[in-house]
Amino acid sequence: MSSAISTEHVHRRRNPLTGRHVLVSPHRTQRPWQGAQEPVDDARLPAHDATCYLCAGNVRANGQRNPDYRDTFVFTNDFAALQPDAVEMPAAEPGSLMQPEAVAGECRVLCFSANHSLTLPEMDLPALRAVVQAWQAQSADMGRRWRWVQVFENKGAAMGCSNPHPHGQIWGLDALPDEALLADGHQRDYLATHGEPLLVRYARDERAAGERVVVETEHWLSVVPYWAAWPFETLLLPKAHTLRLEALSAAQADDLALAVKRLTTRYDNLFQCSFPYSMGWHGAPHQAGRADDSAHQHWQLHAHFYPPLLRSASVRKFMVGFEMLGEAQRDLTPEVAAQRLRGVSDSLHYRQART
Amino acid sequence: MSSAISTEHVHRRRNPLTGRHVLVSPHRTQRPWQGAQEPVDDARLPAHDATCYLCAGNVRANGQRNPDYRDTFVFTNDFAALQPDAVEMPAAEPGSLMQPEAVAGECRVLCFSANHSLTLPEMDLPALRAVVQAWQAQSADMGRRWRWVQVFENKGAAMGCSNPHPHGQIWGLDALPDEALLADGHQRDYLATHGEPLLVRYARDERAAGERVVVETEHWLSVVPYWAAWPFETLLLPKAHTLRLEALSAAQADDLALAVKRLTTRYDNLFQCSFPYSMGWHGAPHQAGRADDSAHQHWQLHAHFYPPLLRSASVRKFMVGFEMLGEAQRDLTPEVAAQRLRGVSDSLHYRQART
Ligand SMILES: O=P(O)(O)O[C@H]1O[C@H](CO)[C@@H](O)[C@H](O)[C@H]1O
Ligand SMILES: O=P(O)(O)O[C@H]1O[C@H](CO)[C@@H](O)[C@H](O)[C@H]1O
Repeated sequence: MSSAISTEHVHRRRNPLTGRHVLVSPHRTQRPWQGAQEPVDDARLPAHDATCYLCAGNVRANGQRNPDYRDTFVFTNDFAALQPDAVEMPAAEPGSLMQPEAVAGECRVLCFSANHSLTLPEMDLPALRAVVQAWQAQSADMGRRWRWVQVFENKGAAMGCSNPHPHGQIWGLDALPDEALLADGHQRDYLATHGEPLLVRYARDERAAGERVVVETEHWLSVVPYWAAWPFETLLLPKAHTLRLEALSAAQADDLALAVKRLTTRYDNLFQCSFPYSMGWHGAPHQAGRADDSAHQHWQLHAHFYPPLLRSASVRKFMVGFEMLGEAQRDLTPEVAAQRLRGVSDSLHYRQART
Repeated sequence: MSSAISTEHVHRRRNPLTGRHVLVSPHRTQRPWQGAQEPVDDARLPAHDATCYLCAGNVRANGQRNPDYRDTFVFTNDFAALQPDAVEMPAAEPGSLMQPEAVAGECRVLCFSANHSLTLPEMDLPALRAVVQAWQAQSADMGRRWRWVQVFENKGAAMGCSNPHPHGQIWGLDALPDEALLADGHQRDYLATHGEPLLVRYARDERAAGERVVVETEHWLSVVPYWAAWPFETLLLPKAHTLRLEALSAAQADDLALAVKRLTTRYDNLFQCSFPYSMGWHGAPHQAGRADDSAHQHWQLHAHFYPPLLRSASVRKFMVGFEMLGEAQRDLTPEVAAQRLRGVSDSLHYRQART
């Protein structure tokens, strides 16, 4: 839907995965900004940092020494927010609004590379393939024990990342967290009503429309979704119907490395900085090794990228006030955001271009 | 429920207003922090700033001159995210995931005081009463035209506030935004099932428990809610069943000034800084002047305070990664947060104490 009306006038758009809305105010992009500036992240780091607890061979907070790894390395989070043994919670009185719920889980850290100075767009394709394989292996392994496996990456100080060493996390738990529950329910309803998975239909429509596409490879499509809340939010989708990371074919997995490289290169090139974001994968819930996925056909694997920057490397969008108390709001339309991302190179990273 | 089990072990708590959960990981409070530091907000500002577009007598971006006001002053936002005339949106194809929705509304700015240097906890009670009265008058006035009236304040650079002049905003719109819709539905269901408004029951239970209470005055109760997602989040409730700001009695309104002063004084004293937050009021939807509120009896007026700080004036909680892709997570329990807020003065502001 490439309608001038919705790119010029205030309107709402609905996120069909969550049911939440975003208020789009295109006329407001001229608003001046006198508020907070983020520190710009563009430092050149050494390939090995003796004080980094993620570098190969270094000792972590708990006294353990990291192995002399090369590409990827996984270990249990030393300060895990989830623990494998659930403690039963006492039952509250009927109608009580204070009923704790037991939960068990596990938190792991995944180092993307031994090289402290790299980020995903600066890694070569074989190294990125190793990251994709680690995502797949972790999803499969954690999925044997936990119902929901959340693979994610917090990148940059603006996104609460306290160590620039390239790494992500994997949290597994025995409950469906809120966002997973919403995505599950909405995809289920859509398949029941329309006879095809929500995100399969959506990818087809976006390829036809073209205006929100950011990257397209043989097997993958990245768009600024129609309902994006964050200025440069993107959704990364396989073109084929695929339930989980570990269900990707070798060809899809290889091509994912390329799609991630192109997308994150565009991100970095947009404001010529190491572009901060939180990203993560949503796939069909796991079922403790059971093979029958007939009840999960409404699912389509996808990754969300939620980057905070708005106007430059130092000016972010604040999801505060009306957003916290009402609903998300944006000025820049998703169509313009996609256009701007398409306007920068997907292959020559700005740091390479400098040298 | 003051159970040692839930204050020592990982568990989930459910927000009954939204249905969302928070993962509580009390064992994790010892986690070291090497990440981003916020700039500490503790500057002394002049009572009048010639460059401030909110100070009395100054000219704003659109060329209009502010009147020579004393206590409060309201004007239409020069960069309003909502506009009063909805533009009809074209209908998308059946099953389309890209259907824009028309929306109309209005955005106003409310200056709390002509004094550029003040914040709510530093204002005296008569001045705070003027703010409460302005909230009431705006809710009533905007409610004649708009279904949802969102009164809110973004305070501090960390919360996207670009001008330290004490001010809030009021956005009115003809749709119920997502958070309002959730609060409406959950309160409605609770009344239907349990025969009493959700937040009336909740306030009674919290007064009995005591452990999450932060401030109690004759007519008001402030607690760190059982389901708080932000470290020092609070919920401010009238003790009597009240649907909207403009329905407060004179005694409730006067006493609200005191409750706000005490709560925000505790906030500022906690880390000895001007404590950033987004706060806002949720009350029964408006119905364009119609007087019959029989269908809104499930509503109880309340204010949410969402402050970002976690450990100190410069270390915030990041709602990123697992939080964006899964659900909220906290280390510090709501009970400990309330205890820490009760541990600082609610009457002597740290800046006064210094002089
Ligand atoms: O309207 P302001 O103060 O310029 O802007 C601030 O508040 C708005 C409403 O909460 C948000 O949408 C903006 O992201 C924030 O920067
Ligand atoms: O686990 P880390 O990287 O220390 O911590 C970071 O990611 C977590 C999971 O997204 C968040 O809960 C924390 O707020 C954030 O600072």
